[in-house]
Amino acid sequence: MIVQNTITTFAGTDKGDWKVSSMEAIIGESMPNCNYLNKISEDRVLENNIWVLKGFTSNLRYTQRTEKEVLDKKPSILNKQENTCAAFIPIRKNEEWWLFTQDERRQIIAENSKHIEIGTKYLTTISRQLFHSRDIGEEFDFLTWFEFSPNNISLFNELLEALRSTEEWKYVDREIDIRLEKV
Amino acid sequence: MIVQNTITTFAGTDKGDWKVSSMEAIIGESMPNCNYLNKISEDRVLENNIWVLKGFTSNLRYTQRTEKEVLDKKPSILNKQENTCAAFIPIRKNEEWWLFTQDERRQIIAENSKHIEIGTKYLTTISRQLFHSRDIGEEFDFLTWFEFSPNNISLFNELLEALRSTEEWKYVDREIDIRLEKV
Repeated sequence: MIVQNTITTFAGTDKGDWKVSSMEAIIGESMPNCNYLNKISEDRVLENNIWVLKGFTSNLRYTQRTEKEVLDKKPSILNKQENTCAAFIPIRKNEEWWLFTQDERRQIIAENSKHIEIGTKYLTTISRQLFHSRDIGEEFDFLTWFEFSPNNISLFNELLEALRSTEEWKYVDREIDIRLEKV
Repeated sequence: MIVQNTITTFAGTDKGDWKVSSMEAIIGESMPNCNYLNKISEDRVLENNIWVLKGFTSNLRYTQRTEKEVLDKKPSILNKQENTCAAFIPIRKNEEWWLFTQDERRQIIAENSKHIEIGTKYLTTISRQLFHSRDIGEEFDFLTWFEFSPNNISLFNELLEALRSTEEWKYVDREIDIRLEKV
């Protein structure tokens, strides 16, 4: 049984489940600073928050069967007790990207940039979740969420560095890197 | 400039812009009967309607560059004065479909079922618009909308017959065919 896809709400707040340890605009404009972040697994109307971003999980958009078989052997498990570090990284891609056809986007993501291969290397240590935002009129296209243990911070930074140096990242026109610690 | 994707609201009502001439459950359960339909280009909260369905337009999910070049030569123009007939066809695909990877879905849609080729034949006479619904937790996966002139009703029926006989349609587990006349 496939669980019905639903919207997740991320809120920058004054009090919450994740304490913001840093917030850096990697590409483009930043967002207002906040001390805490809440990740709520539903489409909730929130008041008195500094900012609210929403996204939905979806079916696989680029992954092929042979790649999925590799990924399935190392499933991404969220809420592991040892993973007290998290990163919330909202990303927007430019118009040129969205005017590409499916085969052109796949070529850049997979064949040229090895996005799936790069990610696979880190699967057992870094748990991740991808939310789509563009289709619901949000200011970012994707909201990416990662959980890892304090021991693996440098490994996580290595992953980001690898992705940010790819051809795919030339089409990213806004990226904010928010690091979090479990309260 | 890409127009920001937004949600469109379809409502079955007692009074509206399109008069329902017929409503037939092709596959699976039907919906409550209504006399009129309204198509509203925004995410609106509606009261006193018989049913409300929502969907969003999105980037190309399967189309490749060579196919897009063919499609672009025959753009789909909505609201043509002579197109006083319309069809609203909500569609749901089964779990097996959604567990396929991108390459498997593309193989069935394009290579095996010739969905894009079939549609291309009718582009100049039948205008169409595709809305995605699955990702926002709706009861259908897609809401399809077509506009055509009364002279082309049999051509439109031919198009549907061609699509419904494809391998792709084996994965459709709910389809309701609602025919409309402009008020």
